[in-house]
Amino acid sequence: MTVKVITVGEDILGANEEKARNNKSKLDKYGILTINIMSSPGAGKTSLILSTIKKLRKKVRIAVIEGDVASSVDAEKVNALGIPVIQINTAGGCHLDANMVEKALNDLPLKDIDLLFIENVGNLICPNAFVLGEDQRVMIASLPEGDDKPYKYPAMFADTDVILLNKIDLQPYLDFNADNFKKAVTGLNPDVTIFPISCKTGAGLTAWFGWLEAVVRDKKKK
Amino acid sequence: MTVKVITVGEDILGANEEKARNNKSKLDKYGILTINIMSSPGAGKTSLILSTIKKLRKKVRIAVIEGDVASSVDAEKVNALGIPVIQINTAGGCHLDANMVEKALNDLPLKDIDLLFIENVGNLICPNAFVLGEDQRVMIASLPEGDDKPYKYPAMFADTDVILLNKIDLQPYLDFNADNFKKAVTGLNPDVTIFPISCKTGAGLTAWFGWLEAVVRDKKKK
Repeated sequence: MTVKVITVGEDILGANEEKARNNKSKLDKYGILTINIMSSPGAGKTSLILSTIKKLRKKVRIAVIEGDVASSVDAEKVNALGIPVIQINTAGGCHLDANMVEKALNDLPLKDIDLLFIENVGNLICPNAFVLGEDQRVMIASLPEGDDKPYKYPAMFADTDVILLNKIDLQPYLDFNADNFKKAVTGLNPDVTIFPISCKTGAGLTAWFGWLEAVVRDKKKK
Repeated sequence: MTVKVITVGEDILGANEEKARNNKSKLDKYGILTINIMSSPGAGKTSLILSTIKKLRKKVRIAVIEGDVASSVDAEKVNALGIPVIQINTAGGCHLDANMVEKALNDLPLKDIDLLFIENVGNLICPNAFVLGEDQRVMIASLPEGDDKPYKYPAMFADTDVILLNKIDLQPYLDFNADNFKKAVTGLNPDVTIFPISCKTGAGLTAWFGWLEAVVRDKKKK
């Protein structure tokens, strides 16, 4: 068997960026603050979204797009809270793209949304190469993953606006060195905002909620 | 800009399988038992390899191929133990492939190796689609990732010979339900062997070492 070598990367990314710009225009038109949430599997994306819905739903109208390789486990948890949610199953794909998000937007009640969470596929490598039309990128890193992860997955840590450092309740039982982690992160991304949090105990979430309300408010003003 | 749609998947996977068969033939010729270790970021691949080297190095001649998007952090840890190690940096690629492993094999002292660990890139989605020439696939899942991961990343859990369930020392501080996890796993992969372990405390590792010595011995007999 012979191997065809075809360079598709530029075309794929270029087409994705065009589609992402269209998504962003649409979301801007409705004043919807959109956040692309990325992390490795099990770092706490869904827990964060659920905690945020419970805290802010009386003040902010929230909707969610859930991205997963398979299953609708997470979407069902969001749906149980009565929040509009669309599940995207990538059928083996390791990241969301702007085309998938475009389809999901067609099924959401855009005029009744202030804040849209897009929960990306759990993966520290590919998702950050594909813009979706988001205003902000929020990455969740969790203490059990270890403080060396910025060295091993630099693109993801370099290309995010906010890092939520989750599962700080486990610090007493781990060798995680928060100073080493912050040093590695700021070497890649000097301007990133880091919020240490625990979705389990609620520690640190007040600062996250405050940041989020501010960016939602700023978007409405535009 | 127009988008070319090109189906390259079959060619890529077909060529990879051919190359993987060549790698396997070569490793078979030298009687080297080869293990492809896969997990999400921070689940404990390197810790497992280091613990295993320390325990078995007097009885088994070990070598390691380290796969990472970037950095040689892990390879340096293995090298510090005086074990032959080759670092593969994928430069953004989210999995190893047989071609990368072929190149690494050219730089290893094959006649002096009984057991080769290939530490794949930390990712629960893409690595399992690319065979490398391995005898066994070992997946590490860790308790902090949550007991629902088999539903969300089914291909990886379905397509492994062994699952090491790591970080059991954290059980008292987590909501991880081991029965739910095992039920989900065996639904996808009825014949898989699960070893609950803690690389930190050493709990459960005796069973893993015993399994490993047996498969290395079996390979030598062939």
